[in-house]
Amino acid sequence: MATATRLYVTDDLGPGMPVEARADQAHYLRNVLRFKGGEVVHLFNGRDGEWRARVDALGKGRARFVVEEKRRDQRTSPDLWLLYAPIKRARHDFLIEKAVELGVSRLLPVLTGRTQVERVKEERLQANLIEAAEQCERLDIPALEAPLALDARLDGWPSNRRLILCAEAGAAPPIGEALAAARATPDPARPAWAVLTGPEGGFSDAELETLRHLPFVLPVGLGPRILRAETAAMTALAVWQSVLGDGGMRPPDRVE
Amino acid sequence: MATATRLYVTDDLGPGMPVEARADQAHYLRNVLRFKGGEVVHLFNGRDGEWRARVDALGKGRARFVVEEKRRDQRTSPDLWLLYAPIKRARHDFLIEKAVELGVSRLLPVLTGRTQVERVKEERLQANLIEAAEQCERLDIPALEAPLALDARLDGWPSNRRLILCAEAGAAPPIGEALAAARATPDPARPAWAVLTGPEGGFSDAELETLRHLPFVLPVGLGPRILRAETAAMTALAVWQSVLGDGGMRPPDRVE
Repeated sequence: MATATRLYVTDDLGPGMPVEARADQAHYLRNVLRFKGGEVVHLFNGRDGEWRARVDALGKGRARFVVEEKRRDQRTSPDLWLLYAPIKRARHDFLIEKAVELGVSRLLPVLTGRTQVERVKEERLQANLIEAAEQCERLDIPALEAPLALDARLDGWPSNRRLILCAEAGAAPPIGEALAAARATPDPARPAWAVLTGPEGGFSDAELETLRHLPFVLPVGLGPRILRAETAAMTALAVWQSVLGDGGMRPPDRVE
Repeated sequence: MATATRLYVTDDLGPGMPVEARADQAHYLRNVLRFKGGEVVHLFNGRDGEWRARVDALGKGRARFVVEEKRRDQRTSPDLWLLYAPIKRARHDFLIEKAVELGVSRLLPVLTGRTQVERVKEERLQANLIEAAEQCERLDIPALEAPLALDARLDGWPSNRRLILCAEAGAAPPIGEALAAARATPDPARPAWAVLTGPEGGFSDAELETLRHLPFVLPVGLGPRILRAETAAMTALAVWQSVLGDGGMRPPDRVE
C-alpha cells in the first residue's frame, strides 16, 4: 500500500545515473498511471539493489529516470528450482506468477510423456515473470529455461542438488516431514534443492518408477486430495520456503 | 488418470438407488463426454461416501444413474475455515478452486476497510466449489457463507477456534514455527482453526492493531515477499495442512 511504483530495468543503477525505461513501461507510466514527470519510482535490476529514482522525461513511448538513492541492498532469493510440465495458458501464467511470489530462483519446463502443451510463449512468460517480481518486491527475476525433455533434464542433473518429486501415486512420506528431516540432517553433498511437478494427467507409472530410483530424488506426498498441476507446485514451494527457505524473513518497509 | 468421471449429487446414495443428474451434468455427459448410456461414473453427496454408478438413461438435459457399489466410506475434510476479503473475478475463482483443493471446510468472505469487491456471485462460486471438489476427489463440498463485515464476523467468533492472521506488516513469527509450536502445545480450549487473509491492498493499520489484540488471533508471517491475496491464502492453507492437517494422508486408489 502507498509504496511507489516498482519497475525492473536492465541498466546499471547508481547515484545520479540516467536510466531508460522500456517502451511498455513508458506507456504504463504515461497512460495508465497518468504520470507527468517528477514522480518517484523504485527501480531494481537484479544486481544493484533497489533505488529511489525520479521520472525525468516522459514522452510517447519513452521515459527516462534519474537515480537518486539506494533503498535496499541486493539480496538473492533462495536457490530453489522449479521443474514443471507446461500446462494450458491461463494456468501456466498463474503458475509462473505464483512461483515468482513463492521465491523460486529458476524455472525449468520439462516435457513428460503426458505433457499436452509443448510450446511455451517465452516472451509472454518473461513479461509475467517481471511483472510478478515487481509486484511482490523481489529484487531479482527468476531465470526461465527453454523446455527440455524430462530425460534430458535428468541426464545432466547437477550433483549438488536434490529433487523433490511430488508423487501422487505410490508410497511417499509427507512433504512436511521429509523436509523437516532434511533440515535436521542435511546432505552435505546436495545442499541445493529443486521441485518437480507433473502435467495435468500426472506422471506415468514408468516415469515415477525411473524417478524414484534416482539417487538425488526425494519423493513426497502432498496429502489426500488430487491437486491440479499448479496447486501441487505452489504447495511444494510454500512448504519448502516454510521449512528450508526464507519463510522466517519479513517483508521490507513493513516491520518497524 | 483413467479414473471414472466424478459427479456431486444431492440425492441419497445406496445400492440400486436411482439418482437424477442436474441438467448441466446431463449436458456434460451427453455433449462433452459423448456418453451414450451404460458408462460408469462415481457419485458422492457429502454424506454417504463415494459410489460406483452407471448411466441408466440419458436424454436432452436429463440423465439418470443407478447406484451400484460403494467405493469409499465418507470422510470429512479437516475443520479449517478460510476467512478472506473478496477479490476480483478471475482471482476469486482461482482462490475458491485452490481453497477446495487445499481442503478447507468453510469459506467465509469478510469485508474489510480496503476490500474493493463487495458483491459475490454466490451461484458461480458454488458451481466452482463443486467442480473443484469433483476434480480433487474430495468427498465433501465446503460451505460458502454470505459476505459479512470483518467486525461482525469477529463479534460472533466461536470460542473454540483460533484465527491465523496473515500479517504482512508488524512483528509476527513465521507460520511454520507458529504452527509447529501450536502442534507441540495444543490449546485445549481452541482446538479448531481458521485462516484470515486480507484484500489486495492489505489490512489497514487499525485493523491489524485490533486483530492482534484479540485473544483468539495468531499473527503469522509468510516470508519476505509481498504475496497477492490469493497467494497468501494458499500458502497459509498449504502450510497448515502440512503441519496440523491431513498432509500425512495419501490419495485414494493410487497407493498399493
